Amino acid sequence: MIHILLIISSLFIISTHAAVQDFCVADLKGQESPAGYSCKSTINVTVEDFVSSSLNIAANTSNIIKAVVTPAFSAQLPGVNGLGISIARLDLAPGGVIPMHTHPGGSELLLVTQGVIKAGFISSANKVYMKTLKKGDIMVFPKGLLHFQLNAGGVPAVAFASFSSASPGLQITDFALFANDLPSSLVEKTTFLDNATVRKLKAVLGGTG
Amino acid sequence: MIHILLIISSLFIISTHAAVQDFCVADLKGQESPAGYSCKSTINVTVEDFVSSSLNIAANTSNIIKAVVTPAFSAQLPGVNGLGISIARLDLAPGGVIPMHTHPGGSELLLVTQGVIKAGFISSANKVYMKTLKKGDIMVFPKGLLHFQLNAGGVPAVAFASFSSASPGLQITDFALFANDLPSSLVEKTTFLDNATVRKLKAVLGGTG
Amino acid sequence: MIHILLIISSLFIISTHAAVQDFCVADLKGQESPAGYSCKSTINVTVEDFVSSSLNIAANTSNIIKAVVTPAFSAQLPGVNGLGISIARLDLAPGGVIPMHTHPGGSELLLVTQGVIKAGFISSANKVYMKTLKKGDIMVFPKGLLHFQLNAGGVPAVAFASFSSASPGLQITDFALFANDLPSSLVEKTTFLDNATVRKLKAVLGGTG
Amino acid sequence: MIHILLIISSLFIISTHAAVQDFCVADLKGQESPAGYSCKSTINVTVEDFVSSSLNIAANTSNIIKAVVTPAFSAQLPGVNGLGISIARLDLAPGGVIPMHTHPGGSELLLVTQGVIKAGFISSANKVYMKTLKKGDIMVFPKGLLHFQLNAGGVPAVAFASFSSASPGLQITDFALFANDLPSSLVEKTTFLDNATVRKLKAVLGGTG
Amino acid sequence: MIHILLIISSLFIISTHAAVQDFCVADLKGQESPAGYSCKSTINVTVEDFVSSSLNIAANTSNIIKAVVTPAFSAQLPGVNGLGISIARLDLAPGGVIPMHTHPGGSELLLVTQGVIKAGFISSANKVYMKTLKKGDIMVFPKGLLHFQLNAGGVPAVAFASFSSASPGLQITDFALFANDLPSSLVEKTTFLDNATVRKLKAVLGGTG
Amino acid sequence: MIHILLIISSLFIISTHAAVQDFCVADLKGQESPAGYSCKSTINVTVEDFVSSSLNIAANTSNIIKAVVTPAFSAQLPGVNGLGISIARLDLAPGGVIPMHTHPGGSELLLVTQGVIKAGFISSANKVYMKTLKKGDIMVFPKGLLHFQLNAGGVPAVAFASFSSASPGLQITDFALFANDLPSSLVEKTTFLDNATVRKLKAVLGGTG
Repeated sequence: MIHILLIISSLFIISTHAAVQDFCVADLKGQESPAGYSCKSTINVTVEDFVSSSLNIAANTSNIIKAVVTPAFSAQLPGVNGLGISIARLDLAPGGVIPMHTHPGGSELLLVTQGVIKAGFISSANKVYMKTLKKGDIMVFPKGLLHFQLNAGGVPAVAFASFSSASPGLQITDFALFANDLPSSLVEKTTFLDNATVRKLKAVLGGTG
Repeated sequence: MIHILLIISSLFIISTHAAVQDFCVADLKGQESPAGYSCKSTINVTVEDFVSSSLNIAANTSNIIKAVVTPAFSAQLPGVNGLGISIARLDLAPGGVIPMHTHPGGSELLLVTQGVIKAGFISSANKVYMKTLKKGDIMVFPKGLLHFQLNAGGVPAVAFASFSSASPGLQITDFALFANDLPSSLVEKTTFLDNATVRKLKAVLGGTG
Repeated sequence: MIHILLIISSLFIISTHAAVQDFCVADLKGQESPAGYSCKSTINVTVEDFVSSSLNIAANTSNIIKAVVTPAFSAQLPGVNGLGISIARLDLAPGGVIPMHTHPGGSELLLVTQGVIKAGFISSANKVYMKTLKKGDIMVFPKGLLHFQLNAGGVPAVAFASFSSASPGLQITDFALFANDLPSSLVEKTTFLDNATVRKLKAVLGGTG
Repeated sequence: MIHILLIISSLFIISTHAAVQDFCVADLKGQESPAGYSCKSTINVTVEDFVSSSLNIAANTSNIIKAVVTPAFSAQLPGVNGLGISIARLDLAPGGVIPMHTHPGGSELLLVTQGVIKAGFISSANKVYMKTLKKGDIMVFPKGLLHFQLNAGGVPAVAFASFSSASPGLQITDFALFANDLPSSLVEKTTFLDNATVRKLKAVLGGTG
Repeated sequence: MIHILLIISSLFIISTHAAVQDFCVADLKGQESPAGYSCKSTINVTVEDFVSSSLNIAANTSNIIKAVVTPAFSAQLPGVNGLGISIARLDLAPGGVIPMHTHPGGSELLLVTQGVIKAGFISSANKVYMKTLKKGDIMVFPKGLLHFQLNAGGVPAVAFASFSSASPGLQITDFALFANDLPSSLVEKTTFLDNATVRKLKAVLGGTG
Repeated sequence: MIHILLIISSLFIISTHAAVQDFCVADLKGQESPAGYSCKSTINVTVEDFVSSSLNIAANTSNIIKAVVTPAFSAQLPGVNGLGISIARLDLAPGGVIPMHTHPGGSELLLVTQGVIKAGFISSANKVYMKTLKKGDIMVFPKGLLHFQLNAGGVPAVAFASFSSASPGLQITDFALFANDLPSSLVEKTTFLDNATVRKLKAVLGGTG
């Protein structure tokens, strides 16, 4: 029999501090820094900070683009804060599309769990890397590059996108160009689109100017 | 109409170099460095380097622990090299278990796609964070900490584990302790297990000494 | 008087190895890794690897967009390899524009040295951050976000853009969408642009499909 | 003679801010983030934040495993916060052992200063790397891998372990498995140990369930 | 026409959180961490946080070393916080010099915009890399190495130094050695300079001891 | 009894690849990259790559500065390559001194094992942090800052310096200034030292110009 009670105390003290560094559950009310959210006190951390059921429900894709993205980034799943990983669920109804977009902060690894999804990214050399993915297929999209997904089948498609960051960010090209107050003349000059096109898209996306 | 042919050449030159840095598809025959594999020449890169269908097949779990892990790390999916992300598929038959293990190189984010999985990790403070996960549930395991998964339902369970590294590594505690030639006396001294236990597990795991 | 010849040898041995780690001048013919180019042998390194006069000449902006970008990234200035910094020169004639683009691999810090430049970036929240910059003004653009520059004055404008990476990459939105073989139908579905617009821009940018 | 008073002021202003970034002494009462503790105000920083005498005393190893680890991590030596380095002292009496453990957050470099220590680590490939170390010998243990140290001589052994992190963490396998409330049945299923062994070790290590 | 109002809300929620991570404008009154300043609330962020006109004015170099450095680091340009980049302006009158110094936290990329500057750095192998730079020339100085700049022409010289860090730091050798209370005897012992030299420089630089 | 032979093969395959990423023992004849040396093939890796006895011998300090530094960086201890840690031994005879120097690539943590050492560093704010250290005392020196050690007792002093890098580098101020061919006039201009001092030190340190 081994009595280790004496050593437990000193080792336990080390362990306590070690635990603080094992993870840093996001204190969503606390300060943020370039490295992420401040850490919630370990005393208040439970397994619930590391789990989520929010991605197990099919989202309502009754919108025009027939697609929804449900994220589990730091803000939704505090346990990922500082761990360099996060995930989101993609629901695409038949005909649904996730428009051209980038993730400035992370690479993406897509896993199709239902249906058929055509996905692709474009490199800085303007080369297109595109594939039709079926259930169980995976595809990786390097950080910061334009990419898209669309439902290429006749049934609702579901996929899960993992990211190499707790908060990879999301910039949807059309929203960035047309959903704000960037003056139309500037949009035209910097995209070569004509005024009619710019005005039309601004109108539907809620942009002004 | 906009003629941009003149600018294409100079901008295209920048873009080519940029493409090299967008990704670094693993040259599996080339040298490795602390940052990953050397890069395959961009000329030889195709979309196939970024996709895989190897995780869409249920693995044969007819083994004693009734579980199999199928990885898509750098070595299997060369496109993830240097991107800080990878994935693996877990198949657990009823009663199946992924034994206690760690990933020295990355945090893990688990997504259950079928069945019921009981999963948990232990912090450096020896606190247990455990949850029973159903389809669509997710759980994150901080880097380097001991964790496990087991099938907690009556049907085959399937899950996908994403990692915050292209090669997160995998150290299964029992294999590390019993499946090699580490002398039994040392195993006993460093684990408090008795000789009979050590010898038994060495015997079944193929260890010697 | 201090004779330190004896110590020079041992300290010098340390220093030699230290020098290798001080920098890693790009061996442009060698292998690349996620961390950059392999290092040229220190024996062959001279000050010329760390300097360049290629940015001191006004580029010929007689093209339709009346702008040129001249980079000094790893491939052009081998000394920056692995140092996390690089630079490029922007020349914009009156009416010139650097179209909407991103740098997947780095943040940018722009310094105007001549003329007047209107520059802006769009955040993931679609908010526009825009400013008219005069000589000596600086502006920073966070990594991966869409941004643009255009000449807002009546004289040629010159600026220098520093990057937080030796190879920050460059993805010009229009080129990514229209200058390759991404099928027009896909461009339309993922950008909401109509077929006429897509075909027109593909035609001028050399795209097919 | 050179009067530089005029320049002192402007350069001093730069220097002050620079000093803040030179180091970030841990404010142990402040918030923590994934990058470490918040910084103590430079005004309150003294040399005492960067030094410690706490590792110069032989610890009392009169416990059953005849070993003690005395850390100087961020929490004990605030000056290491954010610097990527820390250290701990190991005292092992004859027969003493530091049981199988990992450091999730850092690699370890061991230096023996007294006695004889047998040390080893196990790779993810289950290969054992083991050596008997004498005074002045050093050994490095890669991050996150299982390793151990034990006194292989007849006199008290002392060693100092440096880490590539200000808070490398510490997970002792036996404590993680047996010193908490992880149900015995789960321990058995995930380690292949039998119930008698699990119950015995839980009893001595203070575990329940 | 495309109505995307329904999707805007959910995507907008993602985008808002993404924006937080796009940048982290320094809250100069908030806490600092090893990763930089805490983030200012996005609500209060404007384009002014990302721009500066403070570097467009020639500094008054009527001091003895006839040179001034005007920084735009995190503290002066809050938008660079966490972005890995910053910049400073160098003004050197004829005969002016930026004395031997290092930047502990970043590499430097110098761009000459006016006049002629002789610049150089010394590697750990004590090799000198030196060049006379004219307008438009650039030179990179690897992180942490000693370097200098001086005006090598007959007109005021101006240069801009970009850094691979938002707060690269600045240690001027002479100030470090002579402008504080480091005892003269220690300066002599650690630099091989004689007492007369040390006392003289301490006197002019405001040092004591 | 548990038969796990079936699972061994598949898990073993994962483990093999994992082992490659556990460490990257330096192939000293291979290419170097910004991340370190290329990796030696795992087949050829033995425990000898991770251990060294080269620091257990007192160095011969019969030189004028009565001090020697014996490094165990990547080049001497290949196992540390890519692990972010290394170590060196300092021997200082009575009156011995390690002159003012910096480590551009890493922070340093000093442990005194014999004698008495006075050590200190200077911050960018020119503040001196200095302490007399006895056996068992430790002191940390932030990366890139000037620091020194000298023997403050009457017996030989020994210390071990750990670094937060496998190759932290070493720049000794006097060597950088006087042991090369940097023209004397430049040394004078950039350090405020007079010509006599510069010539004297160049003479003893083997410098020219």
